[in-house]
This record gives sequence, structure tokens and C-alpha cells, in this order.
Amino acid sequence: MRIEVFLTSQQADEIGLRDKTVVVIDVLRASTTIAVALQNGAREIIPVTTVEAAMKIVGNLFGEVTLLGGERGGKKIEGFHLGNSPLEYAEERVRGKAIVFSTTNGSQAMVKARYAKEMIVCGFVNMSCVQKFLSEPERDFVILCSGRAGNFSLEDAVCAGMLIHKMNDNHRKDEMRYGDAGAAALALYKQHGKALPKMLARCEHGKYLAEIGFADDLVVCAEVDSIPVLPQLRSNVIKLNKDCSSVSQKLRT
Amino acid sequence: MRIEVFLTSQQADEIGLRDKTVVVIDVLRASTTIAVALQNGAREIIPVTTVEAAMKIVGNLFGEVTLLGGERGGKKIEGFHLGNSPLEYAEERVRGKAIVFSTTNGSQAMVKARYAKEMIVCGFVNMSCVQKFLSEPERDFVILCSGRAGNFSLEDAVCAGMLIHKMNDNHRKDEMRYGDAGAAALALYKQHGKALPKMLARCEHGKYLAEIGFADDLVVCAEVDSIPVLPQLRSNVIKLNKDCSSVSQKLRT
Repeated sequence: MRIEVFLTSQQADEIGLRDKTVVVIDVLRASTTIAVALQNGAREIIPVTTVEAAMKIVGNLFGEVTLLGGERGGKKIEGFHLGNSPLEYAEERVRGKAIVFSTTNGSQAMVKARYAKEMIVCGFVNMSCVQKFLSEPERDFVILCSGRAGNFSLEDAVCAGMLIHKMNDNHRKDEMRYGDAGAAALALYKQHGKALPKMLARCEHGKYLAEIGFADDLVVCAEVDSIPVLPQLRSNVIKLNKDCSSVSQKLRT
Repeated sequence: MRIEVFLTSQQADEIGLRDKTVVVIDVLRASTTIAVALQNGAREIIPVTTVEAAMKIVGNLFGEVTLLGGERGGKKIEGFHLGNSPLEYAEERVRGKAIVFSTTNGSQAMVKARYAKEMIVCGFVNMSCVQKFLSEPERDFVILCSGRAGNFSLEDAVCAGMLIHKMNDNHRKDEMRYGDAGAAALALYKQHGKALPKMLARCEHGKYLAEIGFADDLVVCAEVDSIPVLPQLRSNVIKLNKDCSSVSQKLRT
């Protein structure tokens, strides 16, 4: 099994991701927020790179069933309905809605994977769903860490390391290929995996989010398998992959 | 003390590096080869990004005192005098010569730092010289890991981690600022620092170099403080910083 790992999304290019299975990770907070939104009944998430693109798309959709979500600098964009805190995406707010979603890091990575064969969204909160999806049937895949403003972020690398660790469990060591970036992610997971809330509180982005009032989000983002859903991009729109619902059920009971 | 760390040179831009102290790391092999060349009496190294630029510069210089050095895909460039193996840069070959130098990763990073206030070249082989330079007087600095074709490389991250570890020794923990990338580099150094030859033999680039016949280079590149010199860029040319010679002397005796 071959896993290709990019520690920042800037390192990957759209053509290189074409026809591959791509796992996009943005622990703080897009991966987590998208999982929460879909679990709470949002119909779909439409990731876009710019505020202008978001405004334009919303102009073309029915206003009553569409919301604008996202952030710049961690804060809600002016004129948007929702920011990027998973706590804002409650059922009464999002059920049945399409959400046009633009964040600084996560949606950029997701849009970059638009020519992928399949793209799924991964955080700590839906780790086992992602692992099950990639294992049945088993396939090679790419991990695209969103990073932060083009640079490395510890929390995404640790999450990538956790996924590699879980895939490792089912394979002999010599069957696994994941290169230097994967080896580094795995080492960082081994260092921090037993204390995810502490890691999220200490990493650069976590400290920044706490400073601007989102400390509670860090707790949500650190909860492994708490939101057992599989967000998947199809035709530029992210929806629940329902095949994962049996996993969800199993994890909940 | 603030250390900014880029795990690949692609993540940095020339303007962002302007007026900063920049430490460029390319363990396999440009950092090591440049240190060896200067220790063996080469007058200067002129890093350039393309083969065309190298050819053009050499055309303008006196042929007898100038050599072309570098690689593509790890192998000597056609028409060049030297490749990128430190073992080729023996005293009889390089003494008194200017070397126009173009490699896939290292020279790209070095050229990117051309507007830096000062740029020095760092590998395992000259670690203590670099640390001494940065400590007297103490200053903030940027570590620019060359990486490999725009992607993460383990050996450069481990080398960055060793430098941070050495700077840490002289400071209280709360005085040091190095962000997620620095923390990751430090963790990777702690994992691999006691077995550098093994790490170099197992990392992606090391395996590739061994495959194409350069296994001996890995041994040279892993020897900490074996080449106690300080290569420094000034006016687009890398020369020995002679102020480091006292360190060199001390390390040799």
C-alpha cells in the first residue's frame, strides 16, 4: 500500500492529484466543521477559494436554502451567515441547507483536489470512518494536509500520522510505503497522539484560536471518532457518503 | 530568541527572507559538498538555479580558474567538471577555483536567500560552527530546509532540529520561539539524532543516492562537526567566513 503525504497543500498541484484518492485534513477547523454540519443535516457543502466566488455562487442559488460559511483570520467573514466554528453549525441552523464554504486553508486544499478520483475530508472526529473507507476496498491514497497559510501545521501532521498508524495496523511493515513526510507524520503522532487536547492547545493555530475566543472549538476538534461521518466531494460538492452510515451506527452504539 | 522554520524552501519567498539571517540546510548533499569544497581551498561557490545560468556565468569568467559543479537527478550534469558528491571536491581539484554550482534543491534555496541580511550554509558536518555564529552575537534567524523537489525531506528537518536543540541548550524554554515546524523538527531530531547514518540510509533521498552509487556520500554527510567551516553568502557568492576559523581550530584540536 502506497500513501503519498503532503505536509502542506501548497506542495501539491491539481494535476498531480488527478485520478487519485485524496484525503484532505484540516483539523482546525474545516474538517471538523464540515463533519458537524453534515451530521446535523446540512444537505451539502460547496468549498470555494475566495469570498468573491462564494458571493457569486450564492447569487445563483435559492437564498432560503443556502448559507454562506467560512472565515478569514479565524473570524466570520463580513456578510456571511456562519463562521468556521463547529459549534455554530447546530441542527436548527443547517438542516436541509447548502453551505457555500470558504476558509483560509481547508477549502483551498479541497478545491485543489477537484480533479481527484475521490476526495474525502478527514479530522480526528471521523478518523475510523476514513480508515474504513480506505480499507474496503483497500487502495493507495494521498494525504493532503491543509497546513496554515502555506506552512506546516502540527495538528494536521499528527492527524495524518494517526491515519497512517491505523493503516499500518492491518499490514506488514514492508507492505507500507509512505516516504519521509509520512514517516515524520507518524513520528509526530506517536509523540502527541496520547494527548491530543494538549497538542491542540499548544500548536500555533490552536493558540491563535484560543486568543480570539475559540478555545471551546479545540475540545470539539480533539475528540476522536465523535462525529462518525464521511464527507466526500462529488462534482465539486461535499456530501455525506451514506455507505459509511453502518460504520457510524456501529461507532455510536 | 525567535527561529522561523521552513520545512521546504518552496514555502518561503525571497521578499519574506529579505534582511533576515537565513540558514540554508541541504544535508544531501549541497551543504556538505560546499563545506568540503571551501575547506579544501576553493575560492568561492557561486550558486545558480539553472544549467543555462551556470553556462552563461562561466562564459564570462576566466576558464582556468572556474569549474562547473552540480547535479540533476543526483548525477553530474553533462559538460560539467564536477557533480554534487563531496568526495569529488578534493583539494587538488578545487584549490583556488571558483565553482559555479547548480543543484536541484540546495542551490535553489540559496538563491532564494539572496536578499537576506546574511545567509549561511548548514549541514551536520559544520553544525557547531553554525551554532557559534548564530550565538555570537545572538540573533533571530530563519531555517530554510531545501527539501526535495519542493517536498519535505527528513534529513533536512532532522538537521534543523539539531540546530534548534543546540540553541535550546543556552536558553530557558520560555525564551525560545520556533512554531509548529520547529517543534516538529526538534521532535524528529530527538527520534533520529543518535543514529544519523541509519537515518540517512533510510530516508527517501538517501535510498535514492545509494541506488545510483553514492552510498559513500551518506557516510560523509552524517559526520557531525567533521568539516568545521562556515560558508557564507556575500554579494551572491559563497565564501568562507574566516571569523569561524578559531572555532575550526578548536574543533580540530
